[in-house]
Amino acid sequence: MNKEFNLRLVLRVMGSLALVESVVLLAMCLIPLIYGENDAYYFLISSGISFTFALAALFFGRNSSTQIGKREGSVIVTFTWIIFSLFGLLPFWLSGSIPSFSNAFFETISGFTTTGASILNNIEELSHGMLFWRNMTHWIGGIGIIVISLAILPLFSTSGTQLFAAETTGPTKDKIHPKISETSKRLFLIYVILTATETVLLYLGGMTFFDAVCQSFATIATGGFSTKQASIAYWDSPYIQYIIILFMILSGINFSLYYFGFKNKFSKIWENEELRYYLILLFTFAIIITFSLIDFSKIQSFTTLEKAWRDAFFTVSSLMTTTGFCTADYMTWKPMTWFLLLIVMLTGASAGSTSGGIKMIRIVISAKTCYYEFKRLIHPNAVIPVRYNGYLVREDILTRVLAFTLLYLLVAAFGIFVLALSGMGFQESIGGMITCLGGVGPGLGLVGPSGNFANIPEFSKWFLSLMMLTGRLELFTVLLLFTPAFWKR
Amino acid sequence: MNKEFNLRLVLRVMGSLALVESVVLLAMCLIPLIYGENDAYYFLISSGISFTFALAALFFGRNSSTQIGKREGSVIVTFTWIIFSLFGLLPFWLSGSIPSFSNAFFETISGFTTTGASILNNIEELSHGMLFWRNMTHWIGGIGIIVISLAILPLFSTSGTQLFAAETTGPTKDKIHPKISETSKRLFLIYVILTATETVLLYLGGMTFFDAVCQSFATIATGGFSTKQASIAYWDSPYIQYIIILFMILSGINFSLYYFGFKNKFSKIWENEELRYYLILLFTFAIIITFSLIDFSKIQSFTTLEKAWRDAFFTVSSLMTTTGFCTADYMTWKPMTWFLLLIVMLTGASAGSTSGGIKMIRIVISAKTCYYEFKRLIHPNAVIPVRYNGYLVREDILTRVLAFTLLYLLVAAFGIFVLALSGMGFQESIGGMITCLGGVGPGLGLVGPSGNFANIPEFSKWFLSLMMLTGRLELFTVLLLFTPAFWKR
Repeated sequence: MNKEFNLRLVLRVMGSLALVESVVLLAMCLIPLIYGENDAYYFLISSGISFTFALAALFFGRNSSTQIGKREGSVIVTFTWIIFSLFGLLPFWLSGSIPSFSNAFFETISGFTTTGASILNNIEELSHGMLFWRNMTHWIGGIGIIVISLAILPLFSTSGTQLFAAETTGPTKDKIHPKISETSKRLFLIYVILTATETVLLYLGGMTFFDAVCQSFATIATGGFSTKQASIAYWDSPYIQYIIILFMILSGINFSLYYFGFKNKFSKIWENEELRYYLILLFTFAIIITFSLIDFSKIQSFTTLEKAWRDAFFTVSSLMTTTGFCTADYMTWKPMTWFLLLIVMLTGASAGSTSGGIKMIRIVISAKTCYYEFKRLIHPNAVIPVRYNGYLVREDILTRVLAFTLLYLLVAAFGIFVLALSGMGFQESIGGMITCLGGVGPGLGLVGPSGNFANIPEFSKWFLSLMMLTGRLELFTVLLLFTPAFWKR
Repeated sequence: MNKEFNLRLVLRVMGSLALVESVVLLAMCLIPLIYGENDAYYFLISSGISFTFALAALFFGRNSSTQIGKREGSVIVTFTWIIFSLFGLLPFWLSGSIPSFSNAFFETISGFTTTGASILNNIEELSHGMLFWRNMTHWIGGIGIIVISLAILPLFSTSGTQLFAAETTGPTKDKIHPKISETSKRLFLIYVILTATETVLLYLGGMTFFDAVCQSFATIATGGFSTKQASIAYWDSPYIQYIIILFMILSGINFSLYYFGFKNKFSKIWENEELRYYLILLFTFAIIITFSLIDFSKIQSFTTLEKAWRDAFFTVSSLMTTTGFCTADYMTWKPMTWFLLLIVMLTGASAGSTSGGIKMIRIVISAKTCYYEFKRLIHPNAVIPVRYNGYLVREDILTRVLAFTLLYLLVAAFGIFVLALSGMGFQESIGGMITCLGGVGPGLGLVGPSGNFANIPEFSKWFLSLMMLTGRLELFTVLLLFTPAFWKR
């Protein structure tokens, strides 16, 4: 902690990342060429700017020591998302697809954090290239958070230095492989297999290949950008909608469970409490909402009942996995359903997945702790430890999990207040904050499923961009940067 | 735990309480006689019914063993409030002042739990006797919770049996006196002195003696029932409103601090972190809201500025101490202010006072724990304990405090959902639940300061009655009764 801040190393890492992005942006030129559109130029120039920055950063960061501390770690992780967004917004901004810089930044960081909140009010007018790049930001952001949380962080926390302890998505984890590169490769493979399978299934259901790829990128990353203004409601096909439901739910599962599945370690899957409670909560809420959508005063046809179930099931799956796709405007539903939807936006799905929110593992441990307080009251002299997946949870881990959950709610409350202060309405402040912090997408009221974030105040856009990042990096990484003690020598 | 449930003892205690209430109701006959009103009869008959029940309960409970366990304790504490409300509603109901039984029960339990949520929409049409009894329920409920939390509970928890551990208002406490009766006497004396002082000061400010007594009852108990439909806005006198602000704030302080004050142990007061943060939060929010009420586009007179400050200061003091008096309709203010008001309704004031909510001591400890998690991240090998009032807080106490805070928010979220399910609106569900659970009074929207709870669904009235009680008894006492394990032999 008392060492000089290693700026050179940070620059070198940023340079490498910008180099990667410049390559991806260059590859993006292919899409306009394939579709005979004339905006390849903007991808080329964006790639060039990114490349120039990369060279400069790598030059100034040359010969840097590899000595890395907590401050460097936090700065690197946070700025990875910011740098990616700053260069990633260039195609949108330069081409005039999104003329406002604030809007372009909001849209791009919403992409990379796999949030899916949008400022676009006529998505279909974008070119194939821009639409593809928009959904590519989701896909890159999704694999990024998976690799960080399952391959990089466990290494640091088991080596005793706990460098990135803050960002581990979830308080317990099983290691997949001791080597970062090996683990990353396996995770990437799972990610690609899931995406490819969904693409094929959607294509078979009648989507164009382009749309199938883009929706799959957004599903597996639990992002939620669609290539259509009406989102998934555009495809009025039960097959397509159920396929997307299935893959949203699959994307909300801890990716290490897939790995264990491939290794035939099925007990790890059956015994996983996070998965169990995630599915229980999802189905329970979907069933409650289905009933609320049915008008029991008259006889219902199967078609109406199926549509009610599908809309409810789709919406709960979409918001709980923090994807944000829509097949129905839930603002037209009963206000009671909004509260259920806000709750799943807060809980999110599993740690170690691409989903956001508090994560079910923390919800399960927090709920158990509350329940065990009752047991402790009834039997004050008995030792009643909290168990998770069969293991004892240490008291200091309990405190940490409860503190995280409370801090999350505290940040949400603070953000709601800031949004209201900036001039947003009652429902918009609540919905906008919870949806952006959790990386979901649609909120309530004017920022609900049929609305967008285009007309919120300029300040609120930048504030929500910061909140998307804060939520994505699980609070501590970003908040530490604002903690004076963190910078004290 | 494995003993037979001691129903006889419960009956005996209920009998004694009903006996006390029948005496108070009998004394209430004096008010109609003084004011020459003709409803003394209803108090007499209510007293008679209460007395008959008392005799029956004492008869069936005679020769009961004094063996008391947790189950008996929880049942006694919960049913104390229910029995008091059932007999206390009789004058309102029999006299036709409140013709609906649900409404009468709601109003009475709102009184005894010192909530102050009302179903009346023309308060001034009630007789002096009914108005006095209405505010008397506050005053009885207020001293009841103070004696339970500061005189009775500490004895049980220090004797090792932790009988009432659930209901202690606040996780740490200083004992005043080892004997219940002595401590109770001293607390009652402080309570009477505060009430009498406020009565005299309000009377000097121009209130009638009757109104002065009634408003003082409601202030010191942090109840909030007024004798006027317009609440404190009726008295458009800065003197009266500042006096009420002062006594609301005083009533939000832990009563044991007054005791230490009388004993010249001022260090206990200066060093009390709960008091410090309570005042800091109160003044900060009052100042923010004042600024939001001022129109900076034109030059402001001192009168306008003072009125803005007074309204903001009054409202924050009233809602944070969970009193619920009003001088302004905050639903006409900016939505941003509503969130600040919801936050103070959730926090409440000090443990060991008549106020409700989570209590500042838990908020302070929870906030410190969250903050210390940052410190622990920065210095992972250092032992960084959480301190409160200079003492270390044990890790299991931390867990308990965080679990309580989370459980409170969980119960609030659940209740908001139930209210929305029963047909209440978005704002009404949020505001109604938070205000009733915290024992405040006014909520948001139609149940806001200028509205009332008369038109909410019948089911919601009973549900909110239960929530007022659950909040008053700090969740565990009431929730335990719904825990199957609690009843298992």
